[in-house]
Amino acid sequence: MTSTELYNEYVTKMQQIADVKYASAVLQWDQETYMPPNGSHFRGRQIATLNELAHQLFANEKTGALLNTLLEKNDLSDRQARNIALSYYDYTKAQKFTSQFVRKMSETVNKSFHAWIRARKENSFAVFEKPLHDLIQLKKEEAQILGFTDHPYSALMNDFDKGLNVTITDKIFADLKPQLLHLLQLIQSRPQTNDSFLHQHFDKDTQWKFGMELLKRMGYNFEAGRQDISEHPFTTNFSNADVRVTTRIDENDFTNMTWSCIHEGGHALYEQGLPGEEYGMPLGEYCSLSIHESQSRLWENNIGRSLPFWEHNQGLLKSSFKQQLGTISVNEFYKGINKVEPSLIRTEADEVTYHFHVMIRYEIEKLLIAGEIAAADIPAYWNEHYQKYLGVTVPDDKQGCLQDVHWSHGSFGYFATYSLGSLYAAQLYAALEDKNKSLKQEIAAGNNATVLNWLSSNIYKHGRYYTSEELCKQATGETLNSTHFINYAHEKYKHIYSI
Amino acid sequence: MTSTELYNEYVTKMQQIADVKYASAVLQWDQETYMPPNGSHFRGRQIATLNELAHQLFANEKTGALLNTLLEKNDLSDRQARNIALSYYDYTKAQKFTSQFVRKMSETVNKSFHAWIRARKENSFAVFEKPLHDLIQLKKEEAQILGFTDHPYSALMNDFDKGLNVTITDKIFADLKPQLLHLLQLIQSRPQTNDSFLHQHFDKDTQWKFGMELLKRMGYNFEAGRQDISEHPFTTNFSNADVRVTTRIDENDFTNMTWSCIHEGGHALYEQGLPGEEYGMPLGEYCSLSIHESQSRLWENNIGRSLPFWEHNQGLLKSSFKQQLGTISVNEFYKGINKVEPSLIRTEADEVTYHFHVMIRYEIEKLLIAGEIAAADIPAYWNEHYQKYLGVTVPDDKQGCLQDVHWSHGSFGYFATYSLGSLYAAQLYAALEDKNKSLKQEIAAGNNATVLNWLSSNIYKHGRYYTSEELCKQATGETLNSTHFINYAHEKYKHIYSI
Repeated sequence: MTSTELYNEYVTKMQQIADVKYASAVLQWDQETYMPPNGSHFRGRQIATLNELAHQLFANEKTGALLNTLLEKNDLSDRQARNIALSYYDYTKAQKFTSQFVRKMSETVNKSFHAWIRARKENSFAVFEKPLHDLIQLKKEEAQILGFTDHPYSALMNDFDKGLNVTITDKIFADLKPQLLHLLQLIQSRPQTNDSFLHQHFDKDTQWKFGMELLKRMGYNFEAGRQDISEHPFTTNFSNADVRVTTRIDENDFTNMTWSCIHEGGHALYEQGLPGEEYGMPLGEYCSLSIHESQSRLWENNIGRSLPFWEHNQGLLKSSFKQQLGTISVNEFYKGINKVEPSLIRTEADEVTYHFHVMIRYEIEKLLIAGEIAAADIPAYWNEHYQKYLGVTVPDDKQGCLQDVHWSHGSFGYFATYSLGSLYAAQLYAALEDKNKSLKQEIAAGNNATVLNWLSSNIYKHGRYYTSEELCKQATGETLNSTHFINYAHEKYKHIYSI
Repeated sequence: MTSTELYNEYVTKMQQIADVKYASAVLQWDQETYMPPNGSHFRGRQIATLNELAHQLFANEKTGALLNTLLEKNDLSDRQARNIALSYYDYTKAQKFTSQFVRKMSETVNKSFHAWIRARKENSFAVFEKPLHDLIQLKKEEAQILGFTDHPYSALMNDFDKGLNVTITDKIFADLKPQLLHLLQLIQSRPQTNDSFLHQHFDKDTQWKFGMELLKRMGYNFEAGRQDISEHPFTTNFSNADVRVTTRIDENDFTNMTWSCIHEGGHALYEQGLPGEEYGMPLGEYCSLSIHESQSRLWENNIGRSLPFWEHNQGLLKSSFKQQLGTISVNEFYKGINKVEPSLIRTEADEVTYHFHVMIRYEIEKLLIAGEIAAADIPAYWNEHYQKYLGVTVPDDKQGCLQDVHWSHGSFGYFATYSLGSLYAAQLYAALEDKNKSLKQEIAAGNNATVLNWLSSNIYKHGRYYTSEELCKQATGETLNSTHFINYAHEKYKHIYSI
């Protein structure tokens, strides 16, 4: 068979597997948006079966043989060769797991997810503890199967961001932490900004319409996506032509839905911008979760909490919420939405204290996977470190260690990508601004073309071609470091807090 | 291996296949309710892949060997043995089709469905003709592969209702037609009833709430289901614990949504009532499409267009639509909703002329599958026979041969089950009434327990254990005949039209 024939066989196989994976994603989307409560039992096994099938279709000897043959071909295009190399990397990883292990993981995740929902309802970590314990045991097993050099937890981190490990992350956090503490002290020495206008009553339907309009203005394509309501906001996709976001609405908190829309919108723009012709192949996929998060954080914070963005959107804001915000100046609004204050909930945290939320989760996960603490120890560790790092007292589990969906999904190794994503976002945004001196004016005029084009050329269109590190170096000229975030933060809060 | 071990292996396999089939159903439900327009291309292939996988998992030699071994065991329970026998029947049918054929069918259906949507938008059969032609060619091939004795079309009919064929249906229709024509003449010789109050403006949201309440009152369990909006109303299920209905709302027609809710509700009660412990096995499935339709028609017509039903629901009706229906007596309402008048749209037709709509489709399908007419001939044949049977002139394709989704789905052989379903409904309802003399009073008091219990014992709980014919004989003491429908219709219209 010619290389072209073999490559086509590879494409057919990969697209078939993608169909099954995306079908599983549709079932998960439905589960978190519209599924009636009694549906959960059978839905759990349906998702598990699809995941198992996708795994079987990929991690078998025939795939291995096909990839090995293609690896030796030297007449593939550069992009074809990269797809094969990445698929081979995935294959080597996937065939380490038996179908039984994949199925068991899927079923354990399903149980733990439903336990988490119940635990939140009952505001009791105890309900979640046993299913979480079982899931952690499996994740420890997964780390052993995947292998690692410095720390078992690195195996899981590497799964979300190829090349990422405990050594790198420890170093970045060790660098970031004192600088952030210093900034936080500076801010706390100044009078607090007023954000009381954000905590009035904001009608649900009006918030919904406002969020939908923001998504539209960002450039999110509703012909290739939609927004719905779920317990925890998320972005999912079933191709680059069907990328969905969800949000939640708190009638007494303007910020909750607004920045969840912008955040998920950033994720969604990335997915909508991936090359559709590579459906099912690695080059049709995102680079890494850190880079994915950089896209949501860039929109949420660097743009969505900037003065120019709200200069443009203040008309929409004031016409939507005339009674609540009609008399608030754009500068007051800007200061309010950038208030820095230690708090309990990660997703509602400001850009400075956010990193401490992540660091606590990162430390807990490291200890759990190393077997140094157990699931039962989480609440005490959590509460102690919230006191230590942020000076806040956690009143109950719902506002403490039950607040995030991630652990219930088995996503250990994920949280660090949130902080790294913010650092990437600041670094990418600095490069973007550096090359486009009139960017602020464009954004203030509601023109996002430069942002979208730059992100498309530097991030979206590459799919998984480069690692996070390569992509970052190519787009910004240097590897990831905390300098740009710290510079950005100082610049921002200097103005807001008159430091 | 013991029989129990082998049977467990069979259960595991069947449930895995069910997971994939139900996943495909979720993707189809999503496609017709929430999917953004650009999603359709990749969704088509995702559904095709799942259908192909389900087929591959079932129609292979390993399944055949397992079923053959189990067929020879004589220590299975009666229900286990019936499951094996039915699965073997399905297996023999399924292994006649190659994976390629199944995939091609799925992709062709997807194309034709989207062409139908576009054709309706553009009100032009021409847009639909070529994709429909391709689909018909495949269906003819399918008929040849399935095999038949009297007529190729019988092969397709048998697929929806085991044992049904052209000979039986021709006979029933030949029997029914003159009696219906006679009844129609009698009705048309009398002054027409007034139904103008049904064609006022009925607010969308109020209609929605009204329909949801009707579903609840019928006994539909919203913990195990939900209702959404779609182009064409349908019922689908992903287990007996997740059975969904859809409807559509016409603000200028009260009848459209109301009886679509009751109709789909009847289908859904059947699915919710199937034995959940048989998930994935034949005994967990419905008997046949004719019996499925009997369940929807029984609720829609025998109950949902009866005086006792509206005696109970008139309070809800009048409080929901005070302005439009506040002064209409329940007797006027009853006469209005049972107006008999030849018309263009099947789903809006009365109980008498409905059968002519079906007969025209049945004749067209027979001719198409026999190759005696082509897709291109449909509009002319359709329009001519609507004139001939119903005396109505079809003004355009949208109100003519583009009105039903069925052909776009490849569901040839389906329509007859609508008429047969009505006949079954009348026969079942007569038996139910015969055994429960106070049924009318119970329904008038809003008590559906007798109806639901009788249907559960005589229909729901049996799943696919019996054929339509066996089930009917067991529940009513005789095989299907048109006597009960004709008696029911005469009794009903005698009162309404003072015949």
